[in-house]
Amino acid sequence: MRIVITGGGGMLGQMLARCLIARGGLALGCDRSPALGEIVLFDQNLQRTRVDDSRVRCIEGQVTDRTLIERTFQPGVDALFHLAAVVSAGAELDFEQGMRVNVDGLRTILDACRRLGAGTRVVFPSSVAAFGGELPPVVLDTTGATPQSSYGTQKVIGELLVNDMTRKGFIDGRSLRLPTIVVRPGKPNLAASGFMSSILREPLAGEPATCPVAPNTCMWILSPQRAVDALIHAMELPAERWGWNRTLNAPGITVSVEHALETLKHVAGERASALVRFERDPAIERIVLSWPARFETARATRLGFRADGGIEDIIRAHLQSS
Amino acid sequence: MRIVITGGGGMLGQMLARCLIARGGLALGCDRSPALGEIVLFDQNLQRTRVDDSRVRCIEGQVTDRTLIERTFQPGVDALFHLAAVVSAGAELDFEQGMRVNVDGLRTILDACRRLGAGTRVVFPSSVAAFGGELPPVVLDTTGATPQSSYGTQKVIGELLVNDMTRKGFIDGRSLRLPTIVVRPGKPNLAASGFMSSILREPLAGEPATCPVAPNTCMWILSPQRAVDALIHAMELPAERWGWNRTLNAPGITVSVEHALETLKHVAGERASALVRFERDPAIERIVLSWPARFETARATRLGFRADGGIEDIIRAHLQSS
Repeated sequence: MRIVITGGGGMLGQMLARCLIARGGLALGCDRSPALGEIVLFDQNLQRTRVDDSRVRCIEGQVTDRTLIERTFQPGVDALFHLAAVVSAGAELDFEQGMRVNVDGLRTILDACRRLGAGTRVVFPSSVAAFGGELPPVVLDTTGATPQSSYGTQKVIGELLVNDMTRKGFIDGRSLRLPTIVVRPGKPNLAASGFMSSILREPLAGEPATCPVAPNTCMWILSPQRAVDALIHAMELPAERWGWNRTLNAPGITVSVEHALETLKHVAGERASALVRFERDPAIERIVLSWPARFETARATRLGFRADGGIEDIIRAHLQSS
Repeated sequence: MRIVITGGGGMLGQMLARCLIARGGLALGCDRSPALGEIVLFDQNLQRTRVDDSRVRCIEGQVTDRTLIERTFQPGVDALFHLAAVVSAGAELDFEQGMRVNVDGLRTILDACRRLGAGTRVVFPSSVAAFGGELPPVVLDTTGATPQSSYGTQKVIGELLVNDMTRKGFIDGRSLRLPTIVVRPGKPNLAASGFMSSILREPLAGEPATCPVAPNTCMWILSPQRAVDALIHAMELPAERWGWNRTLNAPGITVSVEHALETLKHVAGERASALVRFERDPAIERIVLSWPARFETARATRLGFRADGGIEDIIRAHLQSS
């Protein structure tokens, strides 16, 4: 079994690779061996990537580089996790770059998968940014996607392509709308939601952090480990369990900034929570407030996806892994 | 005022041009003169286009031809009706061609409009093909788009781009999900829904017609004249009436094949309705049955869009105009 992870140099990509190595592969059914032969980490920058295993191969390049992509997706590739993306604040700052990577890059990659054969499994992480505008108080599985950011727009376009190419029998794709990942380890990225990790991660490491939104701001979140589990589960679920609709709202929990900071105080003391300073940033606030924070994810629960127990579990898991 | 109509050689494009000439232009508000200076008909084939007015200019070419598109969208263009598209059965037969014209062509054109300035109005006709799969008995304004055809997928991608580029202030776009247009004058095209016009148009002209779906098949329809009125109304509505959501389900009426044929008999006699023969076509049926036939279009009604009175009105209007 050969697995490609684009964005494989990122936080989630590396965690996913380590998890796949620990599990020894993927159970994809059919006549495919579950034993891991190779994991390809594809990213524009793999300098700081550390996944130590002889079965890991690194390919540095752009998802928009058609020649390199075609060389990467040779027969023998069974599964793709397409994590490479220009993230929310990045796609909002540079519309063209977002379109190039998040739409054209995806198309190049899906075309390459299509040439491998109909059975090639593709997991495409989408986002709560698929939703925006005037929403019901709780987003349901049937709530229509109305993105209010270029990132969200590009993610929904990706979902549509994955769905249609699956329907056509070109690939076997699955899109998973992930909540905001908290606590992201490592350095902040350009995601507008990054502060929700910073206000926990930095104080836990004795560093100051800035919160750009009001304390009562609520977010729909999932821990990195649960996100990795969800991506693998999305990949392993048989096609017939997915059915005609290849887009799914992943489960998560609703947490306010206020409640996250209270829990931080409870877990790490007042000295930690006092390191967080509020300084509103209208650009960040506009994007984050357009995302819904409350979901009812009945379909995901039925399909066996699981959220975290609560923000305290998430903070303690972060402490344990860092 | 200069207006561009892509797909200007098509049935709807020519009707729209004639209607704009008769009205003497568009009322776009602001400081723009409503007086018609020029209508540009852009199409891949304008050989049989007949719109007689000195203010009509014809440009033959492909919407994917970036150089020609940039030459067409020079300063002075105030409004674009982007009717050019690979239609439903065509996009299903040739996935690449659909993507090239319906997605890449649209992007080329929206980029050209963007260079003209934020105020450039764009009307993008989308379709009931935006909906599919497991739907509620009546599609509401809030029902999510879940296309089950490549045409529908490409139309929803177009809506998302129009919405995001409007939100970013690049253009002033409006997408209108049109019902199936019945009775289309002229020759059949590759639209999977074309039969609904054929089974009325051909018998009314004394010709035989084939119906590829069961008599109890229902469709959501709108007459060509009402469709032209809706496109113009979508263009003229002030931006603030549209608000943040630039996609709208246009009104229509629900008509079964059976009821259409009974009305045909009532209007044109048994000799006409006897000219229709049923011969099921699974490929057509699969596409058509994936489209919903019942809508509640409260928002469109509030915004002043209007449907036809009934199928008899539609048949009589067709007789009068042909």
